Amino acid sequence: MFKLDERLQNDTVLVTDLPLCRVLLMNDSQFPWLILVPRVEGLAELHELDDWQMQQYVQESRLCCKVLSSLYAPYKLNIAALGNVVRQLHIHHLCRYEEDIAWPAPVWGRQPAIPYGDSELAARIEALKNAFSTEEKR
Amino acid sequence: MFKLDERLQNDTVLVTDLPLCRVLLMNDSQFPWLILVPRVEGLAELHELDDWQMQQYVQESRLCCKVLSSLYAPYKLNIAALGNVVRQLHIHHLCRYEEDIAWPAPVWGRQPAIPYGDSELAARIEALKNAFSTEEKR
Repeated sequence: MFKLDERLQNDTVLVTDLPLCRVLLMNDSQFPWLILVPRVEGLAELHELDDWQMQQYVQESRLCCKVLSSLYAPYKLNIAALGNVVRQLHIHHLCRYEEDIAWPAPVWGRQPAIPYGDSELAARIEALKNAFSTEEKR
Repeated sequence: MFKLDERLQNDTVLVTDLPLCRVLLMNDSQFPWLILVPRVEGLAELHELDDWQMQQYVQESRLCCKVLSSLYAPYKLNIAALGNVVRQLHIHHLCRYEEDIAWPAPVWGRQPAIPYGDSELAARIEALKNAFSTEEKR
């Protein structure tokens, strides 16, 4: 039975469930930042996905990239499966810009998160839900 | 016509060419660290791979994970497509350990690389070539 890691739960807000992955928005207003978590208990590494799961993950990762690109026009996407702190398999998908606070360094563990304001968060989640729904139909 | 980015060329040593990707060893003795570079000119993002390329990339990424796991028994693998500095699409695959110098932070841009000694480098490349050849046949 799949249970989301508590730290992921605390740091993020639910966007949607795709067939394989839960899509979470990192509650850090400094970067448009999604996290994909395959809803499979006990996974730590990407290569532990079976063939169907991997194929599905690739589709859902592409979908995330399209959503982020269409909504936030990143200069560069960063995609990473690290898991040094939270071991549950989760894959970061985030937008980077030449003027962002961490550029060109990676974002992890450098600057504290700045949570969204309530209305900003609600608007962002709605925009993301709509974009996933639109892109999924294409 | 594919040409490897000069900074990647300078920081790495060739291990082998797989059907899609060039496999490079990062010349940093602090981490067992491979870089996959799809030999396709002009790519910057993973989602720009076409369907065949993506399927092939996934296979080659799995192969890298198997090789790294069998040779170096990592505590955790880190896989990342960042590209904030070198824009040519390249995907890091590296081994992390609870006792490594950067743990649990990401490795990029934190500590200067410590190149391998000549004989150590030659031995590592040979071990990697052999492991790729063995794992590919499985």
